[in-house]
Amino acid sequence: MEWTQAQRAKKMNPSVIREILKVTEKPGIISFAGGLPSPKTFPVSAFREACDKVLHEDGHAALQYAASEGYAPLREMVAAMLPWKVDPAQVLITTGSQQGLDLIAKILIDAGSRVLVETPTYLGALQAFTPMEPDIVSVASDGEGVDIADLQSKAAGARFFYVLPNFQNPTGRTMTEQRRAALSAEAARLGLPIVEDNPYGDLWFDEAPPRPLTARNPEGCVYLGSFSKVLAPGLRLGFMVAPKSLYPKLLQAKQAADLHSPGFNQRMVAEVMKDGFLGRHVPTIRALYKSQRDAMLAAMQREMPEGVTWNTPAGGMFLWARLPEGMNAIDLLPKAVERNVAFVPGWAFYADKADARTLRLSFVTSSVEQINIGIAALAAAIREQLPGTAHVQAERDPVALPAA
Amino acid sequence: MEWTQAQRAKKMNPSVIREILKVTEKPGIISFAGGLPSPKTFPVSAFREACDKVLHEDGHAALQYAASEGYAPLREMVAAMLPWKVDPAQVLITTGSQQGLDLIAKILIDAGSRVLVETPTYLGALQAFTPMEPDIVSVASDGEGVDIADLQSKAAGARFFYVLPNFQNPTGRTMTEQRRAALSAEAARLGLPIVEDNPYGDLWFDEAPPRPLTARNPEGCVYLGSFSKVLAPGLRLGFMVAPKSLYPKLLQAKQAADLHSPGFNQRMVAEVMKDGFLGRHVPTIRALYKSQRDAMLAAMQREMPEGVTWNTPAGGMFLWARLPEGMNAIDLLPKAVERNVAFVPGWAFYADKADARTLRLSFVTSSVEQINIGIAALAAAIREQLPGTAHVQAERDPVALPAA
Repeated sequence: MEWTQAQRAKKMNPSVIREILKVTEKPGIISFAGGLPSPKTFPVSAFREACDKVLHEDGHAALQYAASEGYAPLREMVAAMLPWKVDPAQVLITTGSQQGLDLIAKILIDAGSRVLVETPTYLGALQAFTPMEPDIVSVASDGEGVDIADLQSKAAGARFFYVLPNFQNPTGRTMTEQRRAALSAEAARLGLPIVEDNPYGDLWFDEAPPRPLTARNPEGCVYLGSFSKVLAPGLRLGFMVAPKSLYPKLLQAKQAADLHSPGFNQRMVAEVMKDGFLGRHVPTIRALYKSQRDAMLAAMQREMPEGVTWNTPAGGMFLWARLPEGMNAIDLLPKAVERNVAFVPGWAFYADKADARTLRLSFVTSSVEQINIGIAALAAAIREQLPGTAHVQAERDPVALPAA
Repeated sequence: MEWTQAQRAKKMNPSVIREILKVTEKPGIISFAGGLPSPKTFPVSAFREACDKVLHEDGHAALQYAASEGYAPLREMVAAMLPWKVDPAQVLITTGSQQGLDLIAKILIDAGSRVLVETPTYLGALQAFTPMEPDIVSVASDGEGVDIADLQSKAAGARFFYVLPNFQNPTGRTMTEQRRAALSAEAARLGLPIVEDNPYGDLWFDEAPPRPLTARNPEGCVYLGSFSKVLAPGLRLGFMVAPKSLYPKLLQAKQAADLHSPGFNQRMVAEVMKDGFLGRHVPTIRALYKSQRDAMLAAMQREMPEGVTWNTPAGGMFLWARLPEGMNAIDLLPKAVERNVAFVPGWAFYADKADARTLRLSFVTSSVEQINIGIAALAAAIREQLPGTAHVQAERDPVALPAA
């Protein structure tokens, strides 16, 4: 039987991370590789109560087909919780914020369209954009955010610039206020649309990050948010906020993609969120993740050989490290796995010109004890692999500078 | 701000049905327009028990990120319930079977690719395929199914033929065994892949429909199924069964689209389905829908003026009717709405050369009493609109012939 595949299918590749995670599947391994929130933070009992209430009071509606836009009370809650004036009519509930990326790709990318991303960037965005066959161009980025001059040189004709300003996946870095102001002004001047992805913004440790880019220019931005990190990812609920000029096409794409996101799940989340639940719940996640970040930073400081650098994420789930000159993280991984510790080589997160010395470490899924053991094992694997003759430079490393 | 939209976005249009349904939003209206299962059939208490059990026993896993392929026990249940030998590794759980259509479009359709559909066909499939910019070609179909000679004349170079053989949406018709055998043999001979959509197959009234096309040639078919009509649509769960040569690309497209379908919902459905629940539950749906189909057929017989024809669906949710010559269903709709009854003009379901005299009537959402009142009102609206001079032909109407 002849199955002729679309051109785009040939450009789609298995998730590198997925393949990497297979290598790390080993009983008892300490994994800093995943991007999973800590299940300790899932409000299971609140969900049990909400489920029962929704099915008891509103079961038939919750289980029926529903509007593609999403459950109205949830759209209103989303609009109300965002730090700029949002009309609930601009809110589209999505099947995870990953779906928002898929819908954006469908309505904004033609084959060959230029799409700008940060260096490095979220792998899931690259996967969502790739099927629409864009020309993806990396904009240089440092510990403070996007390099504005590089953006200027690359923006001509771009359909949009995809940015993840808060506690970025993979680097954990946060774009500074100064850089946001400059990016927002420059994008407006260039007429460059921005797609702002903010799954981690609520997970700050000491102070909230600067205002979103979308708040500064709502007509020029699409904003993506998620319930995965503040409630639970297994419900697959996210949202997007779109200018009124784009919303109808995004809605049509949503309808064609899966008709609507599960109404039952939307009601559960609305039920859990009412009465200010997130205001009480999210601080407990922040405290947990901060204590684990601190444990990882202390362990890195204690264990890592000279020449390894890393940043200090001000929130979120990830720390970004860089190996000494002459090493690369892909070669290191199997040696680390031998010592029962796993990470993701940073190479996977670059649209082009990957820095093979980088690695991503999640500090949220492992306990403090596991972090201590795992970082010691990782340091041992690095020491073992250190090039004997390597002249380890203490050079200023823009990627691995503290994020805030 | 300049938002340059993709070419495909310009080809996407608001759902005609959605726009039509807006016209019919009127308090107290009797609607035969929707495609909604009867909420009476939703096993709410079984879901309440299942929810509580899943969250109590397996809450953290149910709420965490999960495999893109789907929840393994549910994939096994799907494989086991299908009437041919299916390896669970070929089953991909989707966010409703609508998502299966989106994934197929992504990996099989290039701009300009020829895609074959029945006449008429499921509107949601047209919406899912359109963003990938195919050239959609309608294959002639009658009350017994696809016209094989017309298929032969149109198959050259087609990427696939999309068919919905059981109690089709919109016509309610079922493809006969003879026609299935001929289609299957011809598709194999032509090397023409088949996408078989089967959301309604379990809803038969007197006897199960003939074997699926996929069972006859699993390597040449992708099969789509759904839990929406046998359990509840609000959970947004469906599945696809794909040949091993296609599965990896579909999986990558799934991962890029929404990472995975909600693990919580998958566990709820698996929990409800174990111990043979569907074997007890589905017959109650069949009995209810059959009684409502019978009521609608009796009301049609009693009320409709000469020249109106309709079929006798052997299962599913829809009856297909055709107005006398000189009338059209689009003009009829506002007159029917004035009389508090709604339907969907069949025009919406044709990829090309629409038959404007056709209409789709759902018999599942309204009670027998509502069916009696609504069909009488519809017949009155038709009588009022009958062309005074119309010579109502009693011609043989292939579209509106009994389906079985």
